[in-house]
Amino acid sequence: MLWGELKTPVALVDLDKLEANTARMSERMRSLGVKLRPHVKTHKCIEAARFQVRGHFGGITVSTLAEARYFGRAGFGNITYAVPIAAARLQEAVEVASSLDELNLLIDHEATLEAMEALARAEGVTFSAYLKVDCGYHRAGVDPESDDALKLALRLRDSPHVKARGLLTHAGHSYAGKTPAEVRAVAREEASVMVRFAQKLDRAGARPAEVSIGSTPTMSVADSLPGISEVRPGNYAFYDRFQAAIGSCSYDDVAFSVLVSVIGHYPERNEILIDAGALAFSKDEGPTQIDPDCGFGAVVSPDGRGVLDDLRVTSLSQEHGKIQGRGATNVEQFPVGTKLRILPNHSCLSAALFDRYHVTRGDDVVEEWRPVRGW
Amino acid sequence: MLWGELKTPVALVDLDKLEANTARMSERMRSLGVKLRPHVKTHKCIEAARFQVRGHFGGITVSTLAEARYFGRAGFGNITYAVPIAAARLQEAVEVASSLDELNLLIDHEATLEAMEALARAEGVTFSAYLKVDCGYHRAGVDPESDDALKLALRLRDSPHVKARGLLTHAGHSYAGKTPAEVRAVAREEASVMVRFAQKLDRAGARPAEVSIGSTPTMSVADSLPGISEVRPGNYAFYDRFQAAIGSCSYDDVAFSVLVSVIGHYPERNEILIDAGALAFSKDEGPTQIDPDCGFGAVVSPDGRGVLDDLRVTSLSQEHGKIQGRGATNVEQFPVGTKLRILPNHSCLSAALFDRYHVTRGDDVVEEWRPVRGW
Repeated sequence: MLWGELKTPVALVDLDKLEANTARMSERMRSLGVKLRPHVKTHKCIEAARFQVRGHFGGITVSTLAEARYFGRAGFGNITYAVPIAAARLQEAVEVASSLDELNLLIDHEATLEAMEALARAEGVTFSAYLKVDCGYHRAGVDPESDDALKLALRLRDSPHVKARGLLTHAGHSYAGKTPAEVRAVAREEASVMVRFAQKLDRAGARPAEVSIGSTPTMSVADSLPGISEVRPGNYAFYDRFQAAIGSCSYDDVAFSVLVSVIGHYPERNEILIDAGALAFSKDEGPTQIDPDCGFGAVVSPDGRGVLDDLRVTSLSQEHGKIQGRGATNVEQFPVGTKLRILPNHSCLSAALFDRYHVTRGDDVVEEWRPVRGW
Repeated sequence: MLWGELKTPVALVDLDKLEANTARMSERMRSLGVKLRPHVKTHKCIEAARFQVRGHFGGITVSTLAEARYFGRAGFGNITYAVPIAAARLQEAVEVASSLDELNLLIDHEATLEAMEALARAEGVTFSAYLKVDCGYHRAGVDPESDDALKLALRLRDSPHVKARGLLTHAGHSYAGKTPAEVRAVAREEASVMVRFAQKLDRAGARPAEVSIGSTPTMSVADSLPGISEVRPGNYAFYDRFQAAIGSCSYDDVAFSVLVSVIGHYPERNEILIDAGALAFSKDEGPTQIDPDCGFGAVVSPDGRGVLDDLRVTSLSQEHGKIQGRGATNVEQFPVGTKLRILPNHSCLSAALFDRYHVTRGDDVVEEWRPVRGW
């Protein structure tokens, strides 16, 4: 089947681009001398993860225990669950871990460590955990300059029930960068904060086994990673409009798009209506630091060569999207019935809204992939 | 089971509130002398729709053909698909319609009418369609002041293949209101634009069989609806933080919430981290016209009595949410492991991210409902 014949809205994954994106990151991380433990939360499907681990040790990163179960059943034996775990889910983690070679959890608070220790004693098991470090994003993680951070690291080192895997961080603030140079500055901070903290722990007799960092923006531009052992970018398998805008990739590299149809035409306001809204794209704002008026996605030219910057996805409701023509661009060239491909601002959030991906090579749909959902 | 014991994140529906909300709207619309054809897109589940149609004729409104199929199979025989249909989906609409008493589609462009007529001739069927009218929202619909609108209405009246059901509009701009008085002004405009256009068509010999309007904000405050035959609010079954903020309901009426756990604690920035992010709440901005700093949801007080306005859900990433304490509110009172209920800004978008709802009465989970997803 040709993808142009699919009913809309539908999620498309370009296999050639996915393969190129994953091969490029894999090679880039090998040349920087670090292990790649790719995050799989962007696509949440086995097939894409298999491309991501090529050329590396096979470990992956997940964002839910549902993903850990799903990828574990498919043979991925070495998994890091990279969100601080809720104490009420520890029992479930014990069960998931029992069928894996390694399940690593995250700790950034003594209460979580204590809950792990209590359950480990009761169940006769050992947990494995990274100390989550805040490298400047200020979402999760201990402040590496604080006394509490050192105390918790030593407490973890000495725990008979929780194996200390090392340090882990995520420089989510790299997404606020406007240029590759700005993102590269965050990448240097991400690595240097971690190396400095690792050295401090080393001096205190708690040298971390691993130092794990990584986001797609920082790993796309980092030029050297001394002192880092492992990285965890994920979005790069698909990329998206946001990553293209901040320079992690070109628009042509973006492997994920949503195919939509024009269902309304309003020449008096130079607008068209499409049959895809917030339940296809999510309402992620996109790279507003670069273009406050960027709207909810980038419209791909019907010939596939480039993005039509003068078509703006100006608003989304549940199942409607509005596209406005700017400048000399007249929407009359896209009559009712026209199909358009749109690169969502954030492929992780958009992909999660579809129960399957139609995988394409050239004009053909060659496979259908079913991602895991929920928690 | 007690809902407080559920693993998080999880979607809760308060059955008593749902029943009260639906009974109130049903009675309100009866007293205003209009038929209620409730929209079911907010919850997309059979059980909630059954409450919504009580006391009225049983017709419903849907936002996808997947919903039409799903509700049709459950015995809902009279359905309006309230998004202008993509021509490529007309064949599917013929199939869905064949198992219903009535499937009404929307037209706001001659091209869509022509596509319907061509397929109707080929298949030997008759479509049923409303003329979609723009009452000021400027999303879809013909401009009722335009010559094209009159022309299309007459074209539809004369079509041998498409039965003209009447006029239909949605005052989505009611969501921009700051107060019930402002929303009431939009409600009056919504009704008066439609009545005026219906009168114009009547004079042209194309009197509409139905005049259908409605949104939850306008139907919550409208005080009279002369000339209107049918209304289609939907969100009121659940309501949400947005509806409470603009005065469609009280915070205590909101029947849908997400139960989350505190998984991180950062007293130095008076912040806590919860195990629910954009894939539980969506990134709908909420009532920023009332409070630009409203964040991504309202945190319910642990005793269930009211909303904690000094806890702000300041940012969401895929699986993390950040809550910040404001003023004198210290997050230390919510240690790691605490469960909190959050009212999402927009229940339609949040509910669509869950594969089931846990339905509660008081402290108990009494049912589990499975909504339909996709297109």
